[in-house]
Amino acid sequence: MRGKFITFEGGEGAGKSTQVKILVKRLRDQGLEVVQTREPGGSPGAEALRDLLVKGDATRWSPVSEALMMYASRADHLEKVIRPALDRGAWVVCDRFADSTRAYQGAGGGISPEFIEQIDKAVVGDSQPDLVLIMDMPVEAGLARAKGRGGDEDRFEAKGLAFHERLRQGFLKRAAMAPERYKIIDADQSIELISSDIWSIASTHFPELRGA
Amino acid sequence: MRGKFITFEGGEGAGKSTQVKILVKRLRDQGLEVVQTREPGGSPGAEALRDLLVKGDATRWSPVSEALMMYASRADHLEKVIRPALDRGAWVVCDRFADSTRAYQGAGGGISPEFIEQIDKAVVGDSQPDLVLIMDMPVEAGLARAKGRGGDEDRFEAKGLAFHERLRQGFLKRAAMAPERYKIIDADQSIELISSDIWSIASTHFPELRGA
Repeated sequence: MRGKFITFEGGEGAGKSTQVKILVKRLRDQGLEVVQTREPGGSPGAEALRDLLVKGDATRWSPVSEALMMYASRADHLEKVIRPALDRGAWVVCDRFADSTRAYQGAGGGISPEFIEQIDKAVVGDSQPDLVLIMDMPVEAGLARAKGRGGDEDRFEAKGLAFHERLRQGFLKRAAMAPERYKIIDADQSIELISSDIWSIASTHFPELRGA
Repeated sequence: MRGKFITFEGGEGAGKSTQVKILVKRLRDQGLEVVQTREPGGSPGAEALRDLLVKGDATRWSPVSEALMMYASRADHLEKVIRPALDRGAWVVCDRFADSTRAYQGAGGGISPEFIEQIDKAVVGDSQPDLVLIMDMPVEAGLARAKGRGGDEDRFEAKGLAFHERLRQGFLKRAAMAPERYKIIDADQSIELISSDIWSIASTHFPELRGA
């Protein structure tokens, strides 16, 4: 049986990585094989592209170059990691996926949704996530949190409040278009409350997790 | 007045780089400003992508990843080098451009022409070359020449004869579709005869070069 594909989405500093880890542990506690991965990156080729994408000056790449690089790395990630895992029945939990391209390069960067969907169809095709968890919180609070974490992967953090507000609205709009697969999580709560919300949503969404 | 955009295309070892230099010199001798550039690459971002594309194992990237990375680097190259040059009236001579993606990832790699054209429309748009020179020669002779030149940029050379035969036919088919802009050069001649053919074609194609 094919595994399930769960993605975490949202702006900077929303606590995605922490919640990915908690959910992965919880699924493994059910005896499931779980592949934890992330984008951009997740395979050796895609990680090499990630370095070009997330470091350096905020205006280093135009949104159209970014969108194409994101989907180039996504194609590699799908081919080498995600599809083989799902095919052997493993669950895949991914920190960011195609909805980040829709939000960052589409809603945030002004790339037309039609262009992104043409590429998505060719690259992702039928390998759409079974469940998308949108970690939502006010933009200023998220950026403040992201700043606190340091590191050199700050190219997108540097793009300004208006950009991040556009991408928050992009995520929410996308979620509203497919509410059966997209769930909005209030990320402005304690780690425990968020993880409890996520488990409640996941176990409702996937009957096989019920009674766990 | 907008400058002219000339691209050189063809398989490995067809002598493109040598002929690019000769044509650029000849155009400069006319008093023209000429920007000599190449793909993949041609701008700092695009050169960083070139490193990922041309080095390493022949199967490192799938054709769809390659096509997307090629157009990501092309978008950067167009935005930062080619369009500004043409806008200020300079001529641009580029060693490989979009027809190499059509041949290598399309005809050679099996990516659908429709997918490539959708991306080409969004990325290249109206900035199509005014003249495309296809350097044509038998595949085996070209590959033997390319091998002789050494270096570590050999990922595409390693793809086998059948691949290179498909891409030769891809270039010829493309040229047949738009014979007013695409000219096939017999690259299996001496450097002097090839450059003489090219100048004769260029000065017929661009009236402003006549009488030079």
